[in-house]
Amino acid sequence: MEIRVVNLEEKAKMITELHKYKLIAELNDYQFKLVRAKREFIWHSHPETDELFFVVEGRMQLAFRDKIFDLEKGELIVVPKGIEHKPICNEECTVMLIEPKGTLNTGNSGGHLTDTELEWI
Amino acid sequence: MEIRVVNLEEKAKMITELHKYKLIAELNDYQFKLVRAKREFIWHSHPETDELFFVVEGRMQLAFRDKIFDLEKGELIVVPKGIEHKPICNEECTVMLIEPKGTLNTGNSGGHLTDTELEWI
Repeated sequence: MEIRVVNLEEKAKMITELHKYKLIAELNDYQFKLVRAKREFIWHSHPETDELFFVVEGRMQLAFRDKIFDLEKGELIVVPKGIEHKPICNEECTVMLIEPKGTLNTGNSGGHLTDTELEWI
Repeated sequence: MEIRVVNLEEKAKMITELHKYKLIAELNDYQFKLVRAKREFIWHSHPETDELFFVVEGRMQLAFRDKIFDLEKGELIVVPKGIEHKPICNEECTVMLIEPKGTLNTGNSGGHLTDTELEWI
């Protein structure tokens, strides 16, 4: 892929549809995905990998079984592999995820919320 | 490591010394490093890995042999592995780097600017 500068807020503005993951960058075998969300997601884990959330717009919560973290724009959190978590966006937010290629948004839980159609923006 | 929320701007404010890379997160075998810089760096490449730059404060330039990219706060760029590049911070800026553990800032060029003492903040 051609070398390019990616402006996170500009990319966020390009996303109009909720809950569709968009590819914005790749680093070796890692993908950087942007998603606009407004939902309480499902409990799941990724047995094979850590996963990073970075809030680009708005705010979100990341629930673990024993604790809930509040995240605002400009904040990131790493979910260790194998740890159950549930992202919660009570208001619309845009989040960048960083994880290895092939990591599913629903992890080990699967189901109809699984999004495998990743489009580059 | 304990799960924690990392606020990039707050971490940037904690850095007073120039050109010392600080660890702020790990994702599998990848490290997230924050550095405050004001210098024109040296030409180098990383034969084994891509490298990502994300501007947290200020602005910078990333020079390739055939092109120079301007980056502002909130913008990222991926340097493909093996491609010569030179980061340039004419004014003070704070940048987050993402790359595999063990990647040296000077890549294949080495020399006295190599920083191997990474402290967590």
